[in-house]
Amino acid sequence: MEPTHRAAVRDISLARCVLAPESVALIGASDDPSKTAGRPLRYIRQAGYEGRVYPINPNRDVVQGERAWQRVADLPEIPEHAFILTPTEASIDALEACAAFGIPVATVLAAGFSETGPEGEAREQRVRDIVARTGIRVLGPSGLGMVNVRTRLALTANAAFAEPDLPVGGVFVASHSGSMIGGLLSRGKAKGIGFAGLVSVGNEVDLSVGEICAATLDDAAITGYMLFLETLRHADKLRAFALAAAERGKPVVAYKLGRSAAAAELAVSHTGALAGEDDVADTFLKDCGIARVDTLEAFLESLPLLRQMPLPRPSEAARAPRVAVVTTTGGGAAMVVDQLGVRGVNVVQPREDTFARLAKAGVQVSSGRIVDLTLAGTRYDVMSAALRVLRTAPEFDLVIAVAGSSARFAPELVVRPIIDSGMNDPQLHALAAFVVPEAPEALLRLTEAGVPCFRTPEACADAIAAAASRRAPKPFATRPVPGKSHTDYAETVLLDELAAYEQLAQVGVRHAPATAVPVREDAPLPEGLPYPLAVKVLSERLPHKTDVGGVELGVVDAAQLQAATARIIGNVKQHEPDIAVEHVLVQPMTKGLGEALIGYRLDPQVGPVVMVAAGGIYTELYRDRALRLAPVDVDEARAMIAEVKGLRALDGYRGRARGDLDALAEAVVSMSRLAILADVCVVEAEVNPVMVMREGEGVLAVDALVRIKK
Amino acid sequence: MEPTHRAAVRDISLARCVLAPESVALIGASDDPSKTAGRPLRYIRQAGYEGRVYPINPNRDVVQGERAWQRVADLPEIPEHAFILTPTEASIDALEACAAFGIPVATVLAAGFSETGPEGEAREQRVRDIVARTGIRVLGPSGLGMVNVRTRLALTANAAFAEPDLPVGGVFVASHSGSMIGGLLSRGKAKGIGFAGLVSVGNEVDLSVGEICAATLDDAAITGYMLFLETLRHADKLRAFALAAAERGKPVVAYKLGRSAAAAELAVSHTGALAGEDDVADTFLKDCGIARVDTLEAFLESLPLLRQMPLPRPSEAARAPRVAVVTTTGGGAAMVVDQLGVRGVNVVQPREDTFARLAKAGVQVSSGRIVDLTLAGTRYDVMSAALRVLRTAPEFDLVIAVAGSSARFAPELVVRPIIDSGMNDPQLHALAAFVVPEAPEALLRLTEAGVPCFRTPEACADAIAAAASRRAPKPFATRPVPGKSHTDYAETVLLDELAAYEQLAQVGVRHAPATAVPVREDAPLPEGLPYPLAVKVLSERLPHKTDVGGVELGVVDAAQLQAATARIIGNVKQHEPDIAVEHVLVQPMTKGLGEALIGYRLDPQVGPVVMVAAGGIYTELYRDRALRLAPVDVDEARAMIAEVKGLRALDGYRGRARGDLDALAEAVVSMSRLAILADVCVVEAEVNPVMVMREGEGVLAVDALVRIKK
Repeated sequence: MEPTHRAAVRDISLARCVLAPESVALIGASDDPSKTAGRPLRYIRQAGYEGRVYPINPNRDVVQGERAWQRVADLPEIPEHAFILTPTEASIDALEACAAFGIPVATVLAAGFSETGPEGEAREQRVRDIVARTGIRVLGPSGLGMVNVRTRLALTANAAFAEPDLPVGGVFVASHSGSMIGGLLSRGKAKGIGFAGLVSVGNEVDLSVGEICAATLDDAAITGYMLFLETLRHADKLRAFALAAAERGKPVVAYKLGRSAAAAELAVSHTGALAGEDDVADTFLKDCGIARVDTLEAFLESLPLLRQMPLPRPSEAARAPRVAVVTTTGGGAAMVVDQLGVRGVNVVQPREDTFARLAKAGVQVSSGRIVDLTLAGTRYDVMSAALRVLRTAPEFDLVIAVAGSSARFAPELVVRPIIDSGMNDPQLHALAAFVVPEAPEALLRLTEAGVPCFRTPEACADAIAAAASRRAPKPFATRPVPGKSHTDYAETVLLDELAAYEQLAQVGVRHAPATAVPVREDAPLPEGLPYPLAVKVLSERLPHKTDVGGVELGVVDAAQLQAATARIIGNVKQHEPDIAVEHVLVQPMTKGLGEALIGYRLDPQVGPVVMVAAGGIYTELYRDRALRLAPVDVDEARAMIAEVKGLRALDGYRGRARGDLDALAEAVVSMSRLAILADVCVVEAEVNPVMVMREGEGVLAVDALVRIKK
Repeated sequence: MEPTHRAAVRDISLARCVLAPESVALIGASDDPSKTAGRPLRYIRQAGYEGRVYPINPNRDVVQGERAWQRVADLPEIPEHAFILTPTEASIDALEACAAFGIPVATVLAAGFSETGPEGEAREQRVRDIVARTGIRVLGPSGLGMVNVRTRLALTANAAFAEPDLPVGGVFVASHSGSMIGGLLSRGKAKGIGFAGLVSVGNEVDLSVGEICAATLDDAAITGYMLFLETLRHADKLRAFALAAAERGKPVVAYKLGRSAAAAELAVSHTGALAGEDDVADTFLKDCGIARVDTLEAFLESLPLLRQMPLPRPSEAARAPRVAVVTTTGGGAAMVVDQLGVRGVNVVQPREDTFARLAKAGVQVSSGRIVDLTLAGTRYDVMSAALRVLRTAPEFDLVIAVAGSSARFAPELVVRPIIDSGMNDPQLHALAAFVVPEAPEALLRLTEAGVPCFRTPEACADAIAAAASRRAPKPFATRPVPGKSHTDYAETVLLDELAAYEQLAQVGVRHAPATAVPVREDAPLPEGLPYPLAVKVLSERLPHKTDVGGVELGVVDAAQLQAATARIIGNVKQHEPDIAVEHVLVQPMTKGLGEALIGYRLDPQVGPVVMVAAGGIYTELYRDRALRLAPVDVDEARAMIAEVKGLRALDGYRGRARGDLDALAEAVVSMSRLAILADVCVVEAEVNPVMVMREGEGVLAVDALVRIKK
């Protein structure tokens, strides 16, 4: 092999090598096309790939009728991508061979890596080492491969790609589940959705969803991204991709497993569980401007809608659209209205002047939330006129057209005016369609015309709600996302309550006055303590003070203080005989109008997050809290507070006094700024409770916990 | 017309006249088959009905090429069913003519009745009068008609019935929405579902969903019922039908609009709103053993599953099934597991001995919650063996088979073993299938074989959760469901707190000791009052005591009592100058471990309902309460308490003291027995709060409100 040749391959872009290679090696290709290791060659030939294909099989000269090579090193050129189809152990050797030969990218099909325990983890480390040492890039392991629909390269063992006539289009799919790329392909095809590529990313030991998608961003033919996620890995890469996609106006939709993990945590709730893995992922996706849907149908049907509903601009809050519904069928429209309502999106009744404009345009409807054209809506001119009026009425952001039986029998009458209403006129509100009967033809026509359209009321509402809950994609804070080791508890240290207050005061979190009092019997009691007091054991080794009998409340004088201190020492000695108590912390008893909890955490995947909740047991029972990537500004903090139902009790609810929620928002902002401290790395912090005073009187932390990196 | 002939018609069953008439009149039939009034004749002829059809048109002798009659009275026989297609006013005259001629049943198409205000209400009353006077039965008004698929009688103006080849089968549909019967027909047809009949019930002025469905119960060919509900009307008839359907083992599934009404009420919540219209309907449906689904797909796909999952027997609690998942595709199965988890249904890992049996049967799987056969599952013998083992493993109630791409390309490999696994063997657990790819053929084969099968993970989970949340159908209590007038506030009277306690004591609700103290200055204070006291104004005209400054707490002696009484009198005078206070009620201050709320209401539709919630503001903010039709037994009351998240705080949550939830359950039972009092009709009652003492120490009402019928 000539060195220049190697250099030439090295110059080819990652995007091409991963997704559009002009030559591929199939390492371990089987002669039996029904076997997993035989499928890729069969699918590649069936799909009609025009690049060069090199089957490698140590035992055969011919594989499925084609010339095969015994070893990678025998190949006449360096293929741009190798698909390693051998079993687990052999696949690592094959990867080494690929790297040695200069192949820039390899996909590893075999499973048996970190998901299988220590032995597999060791194997995965060997893969990582090869990547680090040689510079080869790896897709997988446990990757079912990649399909470039445009170049007809079905480089996959997924049986779904026996599919004839792969549907070409602008959608790019990246999936943690290898089997799902097949399910999405066939379901998308039936809906008239065309794909640019589909990638099964496997374990993401090297190449990740974010990096792969980012590599395709400059491809003008790719118009949107579907991510099927089982977890979050390489969140920084995903976030960088999402930011860049938003800049280019390319929508991203995600279906992420794990909702039920959050639901299950209900049973074991403690404050930490208020931000479980899926909750953090959900926050992350929304803060990246990625629409997370809950239904498989909406996952497939959302992208055209997302293209029409722009992301909020930075500093602009997420807001539910004001929706108009026009229909030829009352019952069908009511289903959509109901499903939207369940998801917090309100269908708005047209204003009087809009009804007047409808009437003037020849559209006779009775007043109501739904513009029900009844049978008249099956006339082209009536539906057209109604859409024209509603899509320019200032009280709406989005118009949903609901089509009844005529969509099945006479799509010309009701589907055509929707299509002709125009998709890309910025003067018109966004438009979507829900089709009530079984009417695949109507849906195909709408999809072909770029009209967002939905088969079920649930998917329609899910997609709209997911679009509306996206937030302006958040640029990175200064602190990079930490590796796992940064949140390894062994490398962190807990501060005592007083030190925690001091740390938090640096970012502006106010706390109730606090004084450390020595517990030595000969130490004089300080003068002028603000009785009545709360007295608490002070030790970085006792974060759960109440559990060890370390808290006494309502202490009114020096004598009581001495007695309370003695009790605390006795209690701690009983619970934790090894911990010597040197100080108690005394604070004036502080009574607020109510309580809140503010939490901060350096998540090992997504980095700093901030949380606010109402204090107390109900917060846990109802999992009622708001989360964001940190830092946040005061508008975001206010939006968070508005999300927490329990905090409505402090917002003048039912004639109650109003709490100082502005000050609470400032405190949330302050906590979130722990993310950008230069001198110390706070791994975890919580003020619980924060006493919320009456409006204008501020908030005060009366307990605090801070854990920092050593 | 001979009287004997009339008698003969009168002897025909309601079921036949409504749903299977052998002769029909089309009153106002139009010659133009594209017009609404022209459609029924066209659809009837297209579908191939073999009965006798009489078009009535005052202006034509021939309608759509058929002989027409000018007036009903001219007909040569009394048709068994008349479809009145004329405009609103004329339709009432036509109804009168039908009744006069002896036609037993008429469907009224026209709208413009009670939904349009007072004028329409008057029209509706005229219809009611005709029914009462003549005995004719009416379907509608605003009914789009009825389709008997078996007799090919498309007696409807719904454009969907232009459909060729109406699919015949065992499903009967009743719908408040006329347009939806068309949508359900076409969607069902695509899924291979066959229908016996579909009825658009309109406004249910006379014949209702319940009565119509009940009339079909003895038809052995009808195997299940789908109800599309916009509201609840004639709930007693619906309940009677549901009870009878359960006795016959015929499943009923409902899709009811109005979920979002419940959601919207979040914003205006007060205690009454805790049992909004949709909440009551939801409780009612579950207590009738009707499965209420949330998704349109599950509505269509649920009945085969409901046939496999029997209703709980009386006194048996509803219980989520223990689910096994066996799959050829991990990602697809994970979606189902996730969606089930969100709905509180847990997928259970097989026991060790089950894994051993799988291995012995030649099924190699690794241990885990999902039995993932991977590619091996596409072999007939492997899937068959796995199903055999799992369907007999004692730790499961239900097995879900998830089929991957092979369902699309080789249905015989993965669909066939599911079908061959057998549907009606009582020795085997229930079985359902979810198909991941687009695979309509596979779904049709499964449906044809009676296998419950689902297109989406959401519908699969929705159907299972809806099936599991059905309760044993509840027989009627002794008190009949009241008409609206019984809950008209003008006909009711509120009791004062003391009288309310006495009324509630009769059914066994315990309250804190309460003494009425006269407020006249010269009246001597009673001796031996249990200080410290709560002092409250006592008046049936002041149910909201706190709002008028009518409550004083922590009153420790006679002097304070006099002062407190004076303040209360002053406050009430200021707020309600017309109300003379004669007594205050004094009670010992009662402190419980926590608070609860028990409510009772005579709902105008469904009759008596009972509610339990945690007390306080969070109950309202989170809408956290359990509802049932009253009366309930103690097991039901316990199940209600277990549903209320806020009451977990009294169940030893996180090491807290346990409250006397057994006594709370007894109190719920007692309140629910207001439903069966013979001597007094309680319209509304609430104890709020009920103090819940420590385990074994009981519960005590410390405030009560009772409204009775005059």
